[in-house]
Amino acid sequence: MANSRQLWAKSGPDRLLFAADIAGTLVFAIEGAMAAVNGKLDLIGIVVLAFCTALGGGLVRDILLGALPPAALRDWRYPAIPIVAAVLVFFLDRYVRAIPAAIQVLDAAGLALFAVAGTVKARLHKMNALVAIMLGTITAVGGGTIRDVLLNQIPNVLRIEVYATAALVGSACMLAARKLRVPSNAAAAIGGGVCFLLRILGIWRHWNLPRALGQ
Amino acid sequence: MANSRQLWAKSGPDRLLFAADIAGTLVFAIEGAMAAVNGKLDLIGIVVLAFCTALGGGLVRDILLGALPPAALRDWRYPAIPIVAAVLVFFLDRYVRAIPAAIQVLDAAGLALFAVAGTVKARLHKMNALVAIMLGTITAVGGGTIRDVLLNQIPNVLRIEVYATAALVGSACMLAARKLRVPSNAAAAIGGGVCFLLRILGIWRHWNLPRALGQ
Amino acid sequence: MANSRQLWAKSGPDRLLFAADIAGTLVFAIEGAMAAVNGKLDLIGIVVLAFCTALGGGLVRDILLGALPPAALRDWRYPAIPIVAAVLVFFLDRYVRAIPAAIQVLDAAGLALFAVAGTVKARLHKMNALVAIMLGTITAVGGGTIRDVLLNQIPNVLRIEVYATAALVGSACMLAARKLRVPSNAAAAIGGGVCFLLRILGIWRHWNLPRALGQ
Repeated sequence: MANSRQLWAKSGPDRLLFAADIAGTLVFAIEGAMAAVNGKLDLIGIVVLAFCTALGGGLVRDILLGALPPAALRDWRYPAIPIVAAVLVFFLDRYVRAIPAAIQVLDAAGLALFAVAGTVKARLHKMNALVAIMLGTITAVGGGTIRDVLLNQIPNVLRIEVYATAALVGSACMLAARKLRVPSNAAAAIGGGVCFLLRILGIWRHWNLPRALGQ
Repeated sequence: MANSRQLWAKSGPDRLLFAADIAGTLVFAIEGAMAAVNGKLDLIGIVVLAFCTALGGGLVRDILLGALPPAALRDWRYPAIPIVAAVLVFFLDRYVRAIPAAIQVLDAAGLALFAVAGTVKARLHKMNALVAIMLGTITAVGGGTIRDVLLNQIPNVLRIEVYATAALVGSACMLAARKLRVPSNAAAAIGGGVCFLLRILGIWRHWNLPRALGQ
Repeated sequence: MANSRQLWAKSGPDRLLFAADIAGTLVFAIEGAMAAVNGKLDLIGIVVLAFCTALGGGLVRDILLGALPPAALRDWRYPAIPIVAAVLVFFLDRYVRAIPAAIQVLDAAGLALFAVAGTVKARLHKMNALVAIMLGTITAVGGGTIRDVLLNQIPNVLRIEVYATAALVGSACMLAARKLRVPSNAAAAIGGGVCFLLRILGIWRHWNLPRALGQ
């Protein structure tokens, strides 16, 4: 516990990033747990879906980067979050559902955070810009994709309004800002902000990307 | 063959563990092959599903641990087992189906064995207790999950009576026993025994975990 | 660009292999994009499916070999190909569909190429023959499997006429030829040729593997 408290007491920006990461993981875990409840799964199914939704994107990113074991398995707090989320949803499902707007805003925040974090990690591992954007997007939408595959649905991220697109554009904006010598924290804020705003606009205006011409 | 016979002639406990591992792999492979027959797949589909069901859980565990290439690809006997199982089921499907009770008991044994083996391997790779329990459970139920995803079904392990739960509780009991300084072989026997009994009781009493309150 | 042109200007056989690899990736990407259009996905869904179909098999192979980050993420041209394919299909879908026979022939060529490339890479990583055949087959059919899982379908590779089988037999023929001391380039040509011909024959004669006896 002493050791864990030390980890929490990091310097300013790192602490902020860590807190944001935990918050994003929790939001995604709650969404995964709610999807499991909708799918009539039992308690362990709820834990499994919460786990896959919250940590799946980062796991796939770390596997592709060869950064193994993945970050999510090195710190006990990451796997603990989905368990907390599953128990919360298990007992409080009907109350959580009463605040869908809050969940959508938090989800957009989680999406932005994961896209930025994935892009940064890919760059630290010397991936080129195209791959970094791709891995940022995978970090953001990978967990939801695994959740939908397990629930036997076509992944929503492949269909709904400006979801993966928001992550991709946010990640690209961050790299473009870095190219223009914007400091890394400001570039991350720009990329995350663009992703968040695009997603909120997408929900609000029911934006959809076009499908193939002639379909 | 000389080399292979040397491997079989290991000292007592190791030899037992290896024999048990091969037996568990064979049972899971047979179940995967039977699921493929139910899904109207052809011979190669049967081999693929036997392979994924028998080795998928261990492959995912080893990928997450960064223990690559996975154990299942380092010894030719592991990939050979699903081929044998597929051929067996291909020719003897109707006879195998005549003994469902035997298959359920063997499946519970395979579940227990894989949960214990996965937990032990995770601990050897310095994973913390929570992650070790998780990886033990993934080893036990990962193959069946991949099988069901390929067959376009919601994974049964997320739904049926005390399946993933048995693996999880068995794994946790083993770690608790180790914490209480029980010798490692005895702790493994305790964990495996708890998993096996829970699963058999689950089948016998049609136990199910509760779903979310208010659903 | 200068650097890229240098890469293209490799010596004879390497250059041929690289060109063939790029061609195979492009064909698979186009097929993935067309499947996404059929599934009514939007532009980013088309890119994602093109990416998974074209690069998924190689990614799974490299993950299992522990050859991380995967080859497909080390060279920007590999992830660029699915984007090009998605844009092509997005605008020209109806024209591409007008030439199904050409696509089937190109697909058979891609299958043969990927089976050979996967087997060679597995052998370079000291995998035994059985595992090398398996990884060759995974390279060839893994991308299509991921595509079908994301589209919520039972993978076609587990069902259609002599598809995974052609990859498996081609890979085995290549290893058998090497065992008989055929030079590596000739062995690759034999393996790839067998795979290609089997697949074309499979389409032409509507060959199917048998299902379990008594079904």
